[in-house]
Amino acid sequence: MSLAPALQAFAPDPACPPAIVAPTPAPARRGTLAFELAMRHAGLRAVELRYELLGDAALPAVLVAGGISAGRHVAASDAFPSPGWWEAQVGEGRALDPARHCLVAIDWLGADGRLDAPIDPADQADAIAALLDALGIARLAGFVGCSYGAMVGLQFAARHPARLARLVAISGSHRAHPYASAWRALQRRAVALGALQCDERDGLSLARQLAILSYRTPEEFDGRFGPARVVGGVVRAEAEDYLDHCAAKYVAATPPTAFLRLSESIDLQALDPRDVPVPVTVVAVAEDRLVPVQDAYALVERLPRPRLHVLRSRYGHDAFLKEHVAIAGVLREALRQEPRQ
Amino acid sequence: MSLAPALQAFAPDPACPPAIVAPTPAPARRGTLAFELAMRHAGLRAVELRYELLGDAALPAVLVAGGISAGRHVAASDAFPSPGWWEAQVGEGRALDPARHCLVAIDWLGADGRLDAPIDPADQADAIAALLDALGIARLAGFVGCSYGAMVGLQFAARHPARLARLVAISGSHRAHPYASAWRALQRRAVALGALQCDERDGLSLARQLAILSYRTPEEFDGRFGPARVVGGVVRAEAEDYLDHCAAKYVAATPPTAFLRLSESIDLQALDPRDVPVPVTVVAVAEDRLVPVQDAYALVERLPRPRLHVLRSRYGHDAFLKEHVAIAGVLREALRQEPRQ
Repeated sequence: MSLAPALQAFAPDPACPPAIVAPTPAPARRGTLAFELAMRHAGLRAVELRYELLGDAALPAVLVAGGISAGRHVAASDAFPSPGWWEAQVGEGRALDPARHCLVAIDWLGADGRLDAPIDPADQADAIAALLDALGIARLAGFVGCSYGAMVGLQFAARHPARLARLVAISGSHRAHPYASAWRALQRRAVALGALQCDERDGLSLARQLAILSYRTPEEFDGRFGPARVVGGVVRAEAEDYLDHCAAKYVAATPPTAFLRLSESIDLQALDPRDVPVPVTVVAVAEDRLVPVQDAYALVERLPRPRLHVLRSRYGHDAFLKEHVAIAGVLREALRQEPRQ
Repeated sequence: MSLAPALQAFAPDPACPPAIVAPTPAPARRGTLAFELAMRHAGLRAVELRYELLGDAALPAVLVAGGISAGRHVAASDAFPSPGWWEAQVGEGRALDPARHCLVAIDWLGADGRLDAPIDPADQADAIAALLDALGIARLAGFVGCSYGAMVGLQFAARHPARLARLVAISGSHRAHPYASAWRALQRRAVALGALQCDERDGLSLARQLAILSYRTPEEFDGRFGPARVVGGVVRAEAEDYLDHCAAKYVAATPPTAFLRLSESIDLQALDPRDVPVPVTVVAVAEDRLVPVQDAYALVERLPRPRLHVLRSRYGHDAFLKEHVAIAGVLREALRQEPRQ
């Protein structure tokens, strides 16, 4: 019984992060880098990049990047004890161990809602390169990207191949699938519909709920929710309470402009896998409704140095936040670590 | 080249009905039945049921029912020459031939937007039984239902088994899947979001676009739409033009209350397949994202007298509007017709 809270702490919902974590004793520091970035669709812009380092700066560096709602705080530390978005994989003895690597993570360009312009995943990759310059990191031992982070990782590997030993691209591909793009476009329309009444928060809430559906699977919902019921003269699906709960947390933390511009950014992903010379471990999920496994096959067919893992998971696109053992195994193999005794 | 318009006429998009059809010469008549209906969640209500008959009333009767946006006009006739929603299957020499059967179809209870109450699929079934009484039809030779129409058909077969020889249930099941219910709940929230600014049409448009995504598949969108582009400083998915076009037609024809109450009605579907004593031909589509094929398997496992056809279609839930040859084959077999020479 006492295991339940701890397990929950290692199974963060993307919209509902865990409340209880064990901070890693590794050193951590944060900073903000201000510089000018030549953006693909928006010209030269003054930008600020917020970053966090976890682990000794002398260790080999690994960049860790998640989805558009993830940021620089990947795991709790003594310095920053609030829960990170990837507690299950990051920490002492875990697959991404700050005792072995210096883990580098950023808040995405646009995440503060102040950059109101089209942001290409390539822009994020170039911003990361600028950060590595500032930090004196000539070459990353690895880049572990999930979802949007995998898209940015592929861009980084294509644009800055000399600075990367290996990419692990989890649930992200060289393109945005047209169906997924349509789904995201409708989420942005929900925000626009809310904005018409001068309240983007209601629209953002609906957008987030739509996004959650795309991250998950019918199999999960079927195991989790029962039939709809008539409540007060209207029909209510049982999942609505869960969706409300997750969306409220998201809306409290996310500027609508940040959501809009980062959602758009996913749709701008366009890259020829043949232009990625570094070794890439591609991790796909058969049940992913957002990044179809077929796109992972197409990616691997064209990458010069690929390695493919296809996982099965009822959590679909969110498997990287849920399938702890399988993801840890892939990460350890890719980063050539032995499990600790 | 000259075949293109005719083929298009037989491939109606649910949101974009065809403009060109060949009216069937069969007799057709319309009427409205007013009566009191004991509704499952709304008590006794005075209702009006609009119906259309196609074919001689002396022929064996077959009830034809489609999705929540389909109605009583299934095919063009000399009397009512505008295109119907199922031209590909209904007409002279087609699987549902008004020279062989008297085809009966209704506008769903609630479709006019005036019945603002929870409507159970069982209510629709009971309304159909009342209509058959009024028309003097003791027993249907068949009930062919697609999507919501299949749900209502199962209810009719369970509640009025003596009045039905065989049900053909296409892409509809004995329950609403919890994931699909959540998807529909969010569509209803889009309407509510629009209503906050006293303009339900914008909300209904977004709801319809979300519904279309659920009816179709990534495979279709991938073959049909290219990558997103930056247009005027924002990112636009290529499917947005199509979705706009379809939604505009839908919004022009649909009262928001009708959409809300019929969308809810799908989510109220709850029936024990063991209570359906009549023979049922179940048609499922492997790619259906709204009614998972697993639910068709569960339905068939529990029906006393089932027959199952599983189709493959890139059109997913909308296969009944697109896979003309496969659907016609199933209908002919179920209604024991030989193809005409």
